Amino acid sequence: MQQSSNDLVDAGPFPDNERAAVYRAIFTRRDVRSQFLPRAIPSEVLNRLLLAAHHAPSVGFMQPWNFVLITAPEVKDRIKAAFTKANDEATSLFKNEQHSLYSALKLEGISEAPVNICVTCDRERGGPVVLGRTHNRDTDIYSTVCAVQNLSLAARAEGIGVGWVSIFNDNDLRTILGLPDRVLPIAYLCLGYVKELHQIPELETRGWRKRLEIEPLIFSNLWGNSRPA
Amino acid sequence: MQQSSNDLVDAGPFPDNERAAVYRAIFTRRDVRSQFLPRAIPSEVLNRLLLAAHHAPSVGFMQPWNFVLITAPEVKDRIKAAFTKANDEATSLFKNEQHSLYSALKLEGISEAPVNICVTCDRERGGPVVLGRTHNRDTDIYSTVCAVQNLSLAARAEGIGVGWVSIFNDNDLRTILGLPDRVLPIAYLCLGYVKELHQIPELETRGWRKRLEIEPLIFSNLWGNSRPA
Repeated sequence: MQQSSNDLVDAGPFPDNERAAVYRAIFTRRDVRSQFLPRAIPSEVLNRLLLAAHHAPSVGFMQPWNFVLITAPEVKDRIKAAFTKANDEATSLFKNEQHSLYSALKLEGISEAPVNICVTCDRERGGPVVLGRTHNRDTDIYSTVCAVQNLSLAARAEGIGVGWVSIFNDNDLRTILGLPDRVLPIAYLCLGYVKELHQIPELETRGWRKRLEIEPLIFSNLWGNSRPA
Repeated sequence: MQQSSNDLVDAGPFPDNERAAVYRAIFTRRDVRSQFLPRAIPSEVLNRLLLAAHHAPSVGFMQPWNFVLITAPEVKDRIKAAFTKANDEATSLFKNEQHSLYSALKLEGISEAPVNICVTCDRERGGPVVLGRTHNRDTDIYSTVCAVQNLSLAARAEGIGVGWVSIFNDNDLRTILGLPDRVLPIAYLCLGYVKELHQIPELETRGWRKRLEIEPLIFSNLWGNSRPA
């Protein structure tokens, strides 16, 4: 076993302006459906986003992700049709006021976004026994989601908006993109430059749900036990 | 329905140094087990990290997360015992060379880290039908993982290390922390200031697994279809 302590590097806090930039990416990121500009994403920028995703933490360093880039109009058309079918099913589940509100929402920008990315999880990437996955088989999925969030935050810093579309039957995505059985589609993302983003999440502005107060979500040492003020 | 287009704000790319700061957080973040300093985390800093987590994207704006902060030594002791039991089970699954390598790895900093946080997912937070969750019930879990990654990146910018411990039997965490049945423990995190971090992930330095090349992970329009060079 090799010595591992010789590659330690300084890891203090960032200077104030750099720390603020990280929070700015986090707080101003929005899910994008309507603001995509047609401008192409240069390949060096797209590669930076993918590299950011690839540097997510992964259970047992499993790196279970793949990135299927979708730019061909005929593939986008098939994906859009799969969305429309699933969304019609979803619409029927909402009743009364929610039904009309839901029907009026734009929930994807598949065609408008110059690049779509399906981020997948290969459940067999690390072999039969993976460090840290022995007690929860789904930690590989968690790793893949971390990659998605890295990509979303890097995209915000690049001026690129990301819209996560989750209204699909998985089997449609599998068929259209040719995913093997062992591979799970985790996130279908629409990417494009944006000039503006909503300051407040659209679902809040439109009266769907409000942002929760944070303090009631925090407990101290035991579920239900509020923090001392 | 209210008009929603009047809160659009400028969302161009960050200035170069701010964009670099976001990538720096992403590329230099490491899972921490051994470098925790005993210094307490001020409550205003901890609150910033929790607020960063709370600003993760969530399906249908469901915000399914809770944060159980663990600081009481007696609770940490019980958590540590639950880890030790699960890790003994895990150790027996690795054979030969992997067995001795696994046994030598330090996989948690539960006692040393001044604050532990269990991030959970309340699967009933949004009611019976949630926008965007109609076709994949697990999107609430994905949202919760996004919150974890926001927290980890904000922590990096604050000079705080995060170690994600996943070697537990879920039922032990449920019992110790009093989680209701509807609530899933997603991530058990150890947090503390660090002075140094590994430049290269420890599992790579120690010969467990290497970082994969990225290009073979990227496909164009169809699984298995390489990008044109």
